[in-house]
Amino acid sequence: MLMAVTVLRLGHRPQRDKRVTTHCALVARAFGARELVYSGERDKKFEETVKGVVESWGGPFTVKYTKSWRSFLKSFKGKKVQLTMYGLPLEEAPVPKGNLLVVVGSTKVPPEVYGLVDLNVAVGGQPHSEIAALAVYLYRIHGLKKRFTGAKIRVVPSEKGKKTVASKG
Amino acid sequence: MLMAVTVLRLGHRPQRDKRVTTHCALVARAFGARELVYSGERDKKFEETVKGVVESWGGPFTVKYTKSWRSFLKSFKGKKVQLTMYGLPLEEAPVPKGNLLVVVGSTKVPPEVYGLVDLNVAVGGQPHSEIAALAVYLYRIHGLKKRFTGAKIRVVPSEKGKKTVASKG
Repeated sequence: MLMAVTVLRLGHRPQRDKRVTTHCALVARAFGARELVYSGERDKKFEETVKGVVESWGGPFTVKYTKSWRSFLKSFKGKKVQLTMYGLPLEEAPVPKGNLLVVVGSTKVPPEVYGLVDLNVAVGGQPHSEIAALAVYLYRIHGLKKRFTGAKIRVVPSEKGKKTVASKG
Repeated sequence: MLMAVTVLRLGHRPQRDKRVTTHCALVARAFGARELVYSGERDKKFEETVKGVVESWGGPFTVKYTKSWRSFLKSFKGKKVQLTMYGLPLEEAPVPKGNLLVVVGSTKVPPEVYGLVDLNVAVGGQPHSEIAALAVYLYRIHGLKKRFTGAKIRVVPSEKGKKTVASKG
């Protein structure tokens, strides 16, 4: 699919959210988003972690920090979807076309966000995980990304055990 | 579907994994597993968190601790699937029937696990997140769970904003 997907992760707190935000970024990459933009506190360690994965496993995929999620969200050209347990059921929500921004919050999402997006979508109206919601949503509209460029390594699928080979990029 | 799904989470470390394991448990519940069993270090705070969600949002869903993942895995009656980026692609893996154990690791999975399960399945052969892998796998074989019993609260889906009502259970 030609859709260009950006993920916006709100309210990152390095101490508390490092792993969860890292999972969000790696999910975004694996399911075909081209970048993750995050707000909250800047976290260079998180950025380095993702950069390291892209260097080994390929891209294109970038992580960017924004001081103002509000102006980023407002100025984004394309459809804007927030994933929230309070939104419309995934199965009933229309699938956007063209450029897409997928917003995922941390614990407290500013109420304003619900109105600034075009659509609020629930991957089940139950409390679970923004990582899971992002994965299932992107899987449904986009599928797993199959081709990565510049990879140094790739997995050879196997029934038992772990097998990797050097990638030709 | 009548399949009874148990999730086995390996190697929990309370300090480091609290949120990731909690996300795994909430995903397991939301996508229709009936229980999560975890090994590593016992973590009563994590157990209480999940119990609190079940009390408010319904079940049935339980969390149990096992001292020996090995004997739990060996004695499980049913198919055993590990989710790992090194496994067979999701799209090519057969869908198990009947009782199912889905194994998700933390950083270091003992090599023995790959041989003890019936099938190793990759939700994409890329590094991302055990939470995401669990969600997409359960979504594919099972779908979102629609009915929860004993819930005190439920979401009323809305296009904008957050709406909940008291549930009749």
